[in-house]
Amino acid sequence: MIIAVIGNSSCSPQEAKLAESVGELLAQHGATLICGGLGGVMEAACRGAKSQGGLTVGILPGQDSTAANPWVDIPVITGIGEARNIAVVKSARAVIAVGGSYGTLSEIAYALKGNIPVIGLNTWSLARDGQEDDSIIKVRSAEEAVDKAVSLAKRHRNHEIASLRSQ
Amino acid sequence: MIIAVIGNSSCSPQEAKLAESVGELLAQHGATLICGGLGGVMEAACRGAKSQGGLTVGILPGQDSTAANPWVDIPVITGIGEARNIAVVKSARAVIAVGGSYGTLSEIAYALKGNIPVIGLNTWSLARDGQEDDSIIKVRSAEEAVDKAVSLAKRHRNHEIASLRSQ
Amino acid sequence: MIIAVIGNSSCSPQEAKLAESVGELLAQHGATLICGGLGGVMEAACRGAKSQGGLTVGILPGQDSTAANPWVDIPVITGIGEARNIAVVKSARAVIAVGGSYGTLSEIAYALKGNIPVIGLNTWSLARDGQEDDSIIKVRSAEEAVDKAVSLAKRHRNHEIASLRSQ
Amino acid sequence: MIIAVIGNSSCSPQEAKLAESVGELLAQHGATLICGGLGGVMEAACRGAKSQGGLTVGILPGQDSTAANPWVDIPVITGIGEARNIAVVKSARAVIAVGGSYGTLSEIAYALKGNIPVIGLNTWSLARDGQEDDSIIKVRSAEEAVDKAVSLAKRHRNHEIASLRSQ
Repeated sequence: MIIAVIGNSSCSPQEAKLAESVGELLAQHGATLICGGLGGVMEAACRGAKSQGGLTVGILPGQDSTAANPWVDIPVITGIGEARNIAVVKSARAVIAVGGSYGTLSEIAYALKGNIPVIGLNTWSLARDGQEDDSIIKVRSAEEAVDKAVSLAKRHRNHEIASLRSQ
Repeated sequence: MIIAVIGNSSCSPQEAKLAESVGELLAQHGATLICGGLGGVMEAACRGAKSQGGLTVGILPGQDSTAANPWVDIPVITGIGEARNIAVVKSARAVIAVGGSYGTLSEIAYALKGNIPVIGLNTWSLARDGQEDDSIIKVRSAEEAVDKAVSLAKRHRNHEIASLRSQ
Repeated sequence: MIIAVIGNSSCSPQEAKLAESVGELLAQHGATLICGGLGGVMEAACRGAKSQGGLTVGILPGQDSTAANPWVDIPVITGIGEARNIAVVKSARAVIAVGGSYGTLSEIAYALKGNIPVIGLNTWSLARDGQEDDSIIKVRSAEEAVDKAVSLAKRHRNHEIASLRSQ
Repeated sequence: MIIAVIGNSSCSPQEAKLAESVGELLAQHGATLICGGLGGVMEAACRGAKSQGGLTVGILPGQDSTAANPWVDIPVITGIGEARNIAVVKSARAVIAVGGSYGTLSEIAYALKGNIPVIGLNTWSLARDGQEDDSIIKVRSAEEAVDKAVSLAKRHRNHEIASLRSQ
């Protein structure tokens, strides 16, 4: 089960702590962590996952693996810049957003477009044409985020299998 | 001067009317229209632009040009799926969003990340960590949208030239 | 009718002359020229096309339009690096290669994969498992290249229309 | 150490056998195998790697993980179509080509452009402007391919570290 953690490449100490806890808990659940492979939230999440023996995948925007943070096990070098944001979320069964700016917003948008559940910690809120859009599942702790992500990821998988069987 | 129009590939008659007016006015201002090349808002905007002798560019997600709406002069076949959303907005000096769903939201996010002005007609509203983000310039008519877009596009260009000169 | 010209971003004076002639002749045939938008062969071809009043499209790898050569009318900013090579050839009904290194080879490969005719001037030769692959149509002059490209582009289009009608 | 195996999504029994041996040997050397994640050569290589307890990464072109062959441990869903070919080779320190058609040729071209060593088993031969280009290292067996790939991958890595130290 692959779960994405998204957020800024530079972040506050509080966000880093949250992201690190998310990484630790994902690894304890046996999930593989996928992220954009750089610093900030991505690095903290990878560090957390590795401290618990988890596996980490970093989908990098540029041309070389030296940009990866030191806790990335598998650096994927895309060379496609910010278009790599799509691969980060599409590869996951659920996405956890920690804070984040416009790059994170693009990832949230792509995940929601692809019906991939998004769990948010201090992140974006959306409204469309005056109506609130509550697709982002807001939570208040790393534990809640990972519990939601893992249970939705399992459900997401079952839907996929069911839809394959009915084809 | 290239200006992007973004929005859904299927849309309400009111949105189509708005988008068509936007296309007409952009062409009257001598702007080249760039969009995702498909139906709905994109098609209405292209139709409007062509009715006034404008030039239209469609950045298509798939593998063949037959998916382009009939008012696209220059179909660019990217084959990169939704990653083409980035090229739509990055190629423009300003972006006009008409309505829109999650695909449009990803385009808004990429434009704002790239400091490209976004003008919104009945589109998304954003808030981050409880704070409203008013980066999307909300307007109420096609005229207002195009006036804003054209004046911001000119300013955007002047900034670029100034920053080149100071290098 | 859109036709691509591909080749190195730095080139010999002879290649530049060939590419410029190709650009001139394409414009005289009323074709729109698409290319990677940078220097060398791309710039020479665009300069030739503009000298005859043609329209030029540059599919740029990076993040800003200032990298475009001065004869590009429509700079498309993809931000996807070398993956933009695919868009250059897929958008064309025929491709003319002038010289070229590995980037050009990737474009030739993508064009042949997509059944888009490739005409070669002093460019790559291919063999697979010891057998020559003569898919690249070798020619010796700009005139021959453009004549071949234009006639194959027309045939390519007719095939497309026929295949649409039979669907 | 990540090494890529590239080749057709449908292949002859001989090619499948070669690819499977390549996968087995890579896993025995402790290398992580990266590939395009689909059938044919990719599937055979992954099957070989898994039979020896190796780790496999599949960089998929489409939108869902069900297209991955059953021996892919980590399916990366890019949604960018054939542009994913770039990520397959750029993520590797060396590339082994088994047979292959134009898609494989595009991968060889991108690898050579990025100075990533390419080892070839019954694959493409290149010549440019009448001159043979011997950048593809031709070998005759899976053993020879993997030995070359592993030793070049190590050297490639040392170059990277040296170039980082001298910055």
